[in-house]
Amino acid sequence: MSQIAKIKDVIITPVAFHDMPLLNSVGVHEPYALRSIIEVITDSTYGLGESYGDSTHLSRLQKVAEQIKGLSVYDTNSIYKICVKSLAGDTSTGGDGMAGMVTTASVADKVFSPFEVACLDIQGKKAGIPVSDLLGGRVRDNVQYSAYLFYKWAGHPGEPDDEYGSALDPAGVVKQAKKIIDEYGFKAIKLKGGVFPPAQEVEAIKALHAAFPGVPLRLDPNAAWTVETSLWVAKQLEGMVEYLEDPAPEIEGMAAVAKEASMPLATNMAVVAFSHLPPSILQNAVNVILSDHHFWGGLRKSQTLATICATWGMRLSMHSNSHLGISLAAMTHLASATPNLDYACDTHWPWKRRDEDVVVDGALKWTNGGVSVPTAPGLGVELDREKLARLHQQYLDCGLRKRDDTAYMRKFQPDFCADLARW
Amino acid sequence: MSQIAKIKDVIITPVAFHDMPLLNSVGVHEPYALRSIIEVITDSTYGLGESYGDSTHLSRLQKVAEQIKGLSVYDTNSIYKICVKSLAGDTSTGGDGMAGMVTTASVADKVFSPFEVACLDIQGKKAGIPVSDLLGGRVRDNVQYSAYLFYKWAGHPGEPDDEYGSALDPAGVVKQAKKIIDEYGFKAIKLKGGVFPPAQEVEAIKALHAAFPGVPLRLDPNAAWTVETSLWVAKQLEGMVEYLEDPAPEIEGMAAVAKEASMPLATNMAVVAFSHLPPSILQNAVNVILSDHHFWGGLRKSQTLATICATWGMRLSMHSNSHLGISLAAMTHLASATPNLDYACDTHWPWKRRDEDVVVDGALKWTNGGVSVPTAPGLGVELDREKLARLHQQYLDCGLRKRDDTAYMRKFQPDFCADLARW
Ligand SMILES: [Mg+2]
Ligand SMILES: [Mg+2]
Repeated sequence: MSQIAKIKDVIITPVAFHDMPLLNSVGVHEPYALRSIIEVITDSTYGLGESYGDSTHLSRLQKVAEQIKGLSVYDTNSIYKICVKSLAGDTSTGGDGMAGMVTTASVADKVFSPFEVACLDIQGKKAGIPVSDLLGGRVRDNVQYSAYLFYKWAGHPGEPDDEYGSALDPAGVVKQAKKIIDEYGFKAIKLKGGVFPPAQEVEAIKALHAAFPGVPLRLDPNAAWTVETSLWVAKQLEGMVEYLEDPAPEIEGMAAVAKEASMPLATNMAVVAFSHLPPSILQNAVNVILSDHHFWGGLRKSQTLATICATWGMRLSMHSNSHLGISLAAMTHLASATPNLDYACDTHWPWKRRDEDVVVDGALKWTNGGVSVPTAPGLGVELDREKLARLHQQYLDCGLRKRDDTAYMRKFQPDFCADLARW
Repeated sequence: MSQIAKIKDVIITPVAFHDMPLLNSVGVHEPYALRSIIEVITDSTYGLGESYGDSTHLSRLQKVAEQIKGLSVYDTNSIYKICVKSLAGDTSTGGDGMAGMVTTASVADKVFSPFEVACLDIQGKKAGIPVSDLLGGRVRDNVQYSAYLFYKWAGHPGEPDDEYGSALDPAGVVKQAKKIIDEYGFKAIKLKGGVFPPAQEVEAIKALHAAFPGVPLRLDPNAAWTVETSLWVAKQLEGMVEYLEDPAPEIEGMAAVAKEASMPLATNMAVVAFSHLPPSILQNAVNVILSDHHFWGGLRKSQTLATICATWGMRLSMHSNSHLGISLAAMTHLASATPNLDYACDTHWPWKRRDEDVVVDGALKWTNGGVSVPTAPGLGVELDREKLARLHQQYLDCGLRKRDDTAYMRKFQPDFCADLARW
């Protein structure tokens, strides 16, 4: 039973997939979203990870990839150490794939994450059990996601309208919600705000509240508001949202809002690394953490974050960036094995084209507003090499090498202001 | 590769092994220490756990044992849930095996722990890897332990002297240290205090400091001192101890001492459960947590505690009760895979008879003040059923059903005062 699975090779493939013109506080999504696909290869099998795809992050991943060959897939302590070491003296910027919206997260945790996920995929495959079992066993068979609504243009400028069309006012948002809920059955709704003056976004939430009575709602302006504006919005939305997400910037801004707002405050911007927890908790800045294994250092560290939330009386939700099937599988396994997950998770899934992914079709089944937790060994998804090649070619052809929502927006609105908080 | 390992049976065996008359703030160790040995049995193998052996704890373990049959050994989330549920309405007292020195730890975590360890043992065996690999891989091959010194009587009253003889003054303590270090090679020394007036215990530390220059020292009076006395001791021992352990009772007492003491304060009494962390951190009550997987909910939750310590800038050491080889193996695996373990761990190992254990000889090798991390699959220890039967018979014969250091002391000193803090 000698089963020491050593890492023989690591392949990192940058890919690009079509994205829609989704608006946020710093600009608009570009025509392509970038991701990196990580294959960790042993003698007998391979494991998958997925992460950001901008150049800075890719070169950091590549540097680590070369140093972990020969290590056991169980030796995540050594892999983490290599991530930390390989970043010494690294002064490059970017690397978070989040268009400047998350800048201070622990870089080592972000670099480590896809390797950890790939190692857990292999550990699960070797043991014949799903990753959710490695994480303590699933406490739910279906992981609920939220309908993640965006203000958006009808299509990218110069292109035909996409299947969702435009959503630029409350009526457009409600229409979008109906379409997306019709297809997926989501039972919670999140609106990405920070795009229009706050009064209009309040009206959009009120319209959603009227159109979907009883459905939990969330509004996330990505820190576009001052404390005063946040408190005004909080007053308007009293009793109408399950949480208000990142209304104002930084721990200090959130703490000031939290003092007076009646609803829980959630964040994936003010608290995005373990080092942010002590000051945030000291100031009672947030009530809900949106965890994200891509920047919290992988699945096990995300579970540690969950226990920290339970210990300090905070609630837990889950953040998403534009992503593919490997990430959806990882998010689903993690969520399924985390008892104190209190809310439907976020996902950008509906915004990608149905035929664009890197995994073999059929493993991830959407039912009833959620994803059935895969029960096959490991993550339960396999690489479709043909699709991977297509998305890699798309990466080569599209010319994008980092995410820059602001620059893309300024192509069309040269005076666009991305300052936070600007209302 | 269908490898779903279901729990077929659970056997809990109470055992007793000889203990020496070791003195502490609440009394003296009885002639036998009690432990429970947990066997979790699957179709193809079995896993081991070890925990407290008093009746209250045994009946709680038994109740859980009957409810986890049929579960997967990976489904620790469900096992934990059963522990919590089965304790609903439980008003029995005791169960911590710590003679009243730890009373508020989370009972569910204590009941869960040996089942989790046994499940990890099986997970490791099935994957062909040591438990340290399940925990992220060992960052050290040898886990260092401390020389755990006790004031003690020469032997139990009415019995011949034991091999260590008496240690009732600084000279006796130094002599004991020499003997124990001669045999094990320990490179750090801890003295259990709270037995004599503080001035004498200060003299004992000074004597150790003189006899073992440069060796890290610790003093642990188990909360026997007032804040004032603690500060007086702290002043006397400035620059002489690596930490002062539980000088005064409760988070409040520790916080008051921490404000003025020059050395780090450590605890395994004021902070013994996740719920104690928020108030303790808020008050800066302690600098070092002595983790203990027996009361922090098993190996994985102990790793979560380690990350919490790293996040909040606390250091990490490890606590011990009288224990056998299963616990030593579990402690060693955990310590080996915890990067931010900052001190040599405590162990009562030298105080048990060499021929008394429940595991097959030879798996746990002492070298150079530490234990070599077992590399065989699982915990790396196997049950010796003959020895187990002998220690179980000893349990049946000895008549002890709970630990009560105070009652035993009062047999010989009827007016013994166990009040904390009493100096
Ligand atoms: Mg957000
Ligand atoms: Mg102690």
